[in-house]
Amino acid sequence: MNFLDMLRNAERQNGSMLCVGLDPEPAKFPATLKGDAGKIYDFCAAIVDATADLVSAFKPQIAYFAARRAEDQLEALIAHIHEKHPGIPVILDAKRGDIGSTAEQYAVEAFERFKADAVTVNPYMGHDSVEPWLSYSKKGVILLCRTSNPGGSDLQFLDVGGEKLYERVASLAAKNWNSTGQIGLVVGATFPAEIERVRAIVGDMPLLVPGIGAQ
Amino acid sequence: MNFLDMLRNAERQNGSMLCVGLDPEPAKFPATLKGDAGKIYDFCAAIVDATADLVSAFKPQIAYFAARRAEDQLEALIAHIHEKHPGIPVILDAKRGDIGSTAEQYAVEAFERFKADAVTVNPYMGHDSVEPWLSYSKKGVILLCRTSNPGGSDLQFLDVGGEKLYERVASLAAKNWNSTGQIGLVVGATFPAEIERVRAIVGDMPLLVPGIGAQ
Repeated sequence: MNFLDMLRNAERQNGSMLCVGLDPEPAKFPATLKGDAGKIYDFCAAIVDATADLVSAFKPQIAYFAARRAEDQLEALIAHIHEKHPGIPVILDAKRGDIGSTAEQYAVEAFERFKADAVTVNPYMGHDSVEPWLSYSKKGVILLCRTSNPGGSDLQFLDVGGEKLYERVASLAAKNWNSTGQIGLVVGATFPAEIERVRAIVGDMPLLVPGIGAQ
Repeated sequence: MNFLDMLRNAERQNGSMLCVGLDPEPAKFPATLKGDAGKIYDFCAAIVDATADLVSAFKPQIAYFAARRAEDQLEALIAHIHEKHPGIPVILDAKRGDIGSTAEQYAVEAFERFKADAVTVNPYMGHDSVEPWLSYSKKGVILLCRTSNPGGSDLQFLDVGGEKLYERVASLAAKNWNSTGQIGLVVGATFPAEIERVRAIVGDMPLLVPGIGAQ
């Protein structure tokens, strides 16, 4: 089953559009695990098991694993999700962005090594930084469009010929880059009017909407 | 010594502005190493040792290591460069880009785990995706500005109020984000006139200029 079908099925089955982020910071773990980078898997797997019937996707953030040489725990976590909760897709939040053979290597990392169902990707390098990901026809590629941080406006809110840069990204994604139907977009929840604008441009393309609660 | 001083010293000492990229693809290794992902370190270390007196920097591309679970070999390679060729800075080509606590984790990955002297970063998320890197005051942060791939023009060449987006990135980097003097820019060699334009905007900021030869 491809990412989009998995996502729609999970949404329907759990009656939920919630995506649970997994950004494990050992210093903030509960007392029994606190500060123990060897317990990242345990901490995340417990959250996964407690929420799997309430969500439409899980989204581990790779930097939290990479900072602690815990790639093996990330592999184990995603394997755990696929095994115990096979209907719930995993979006690897990696915000990768590169071209040609390098992008292909990143795709191997995300899709073959970690076996994510989808990945977040940065669009700044344009169409040939998106294409290599799409050769994995069952996988999803979620492009940064409008991010919820203050600096998000530095580039994304610039006017480019009567629209904002993030609207141009939405339009390129929907009209030029998405012939295979694998693309989604990140649009921050802090800007509801902009979600509406993106939605008008992209139709029913999946939107990942972070920024609810403290970040 | 900080990254910029290291780079200037290496340039002077070796009479070179060449940065050697290390994008190890085992399928393309010479016969005795061919296809052996366990020999990535050996392959790269041989290149490093053969060129260390001819270069101003080395630039390993992290995706080639991550795709093969070879982060340990990347750590060993950078340690080898620092030990055997202590004057030559290492730029980790990772093109990371995220905000707040996630950016901090990526900085731990690049600077504490891998011990790179500088890292490539994607500017799409704006100033608060750049700042966390700068808290490592001896390290360099090299932002994507104008990339040498065909799709580079999709966003970077858009007109934003009388200048191109890549010029705006150069200007933001030089005038707003670089109070600590740690920032450099990636500007593709395929567009010499644009290198000139960026140089006019950023003064003597270091420019990483990829795109000479096949990519």
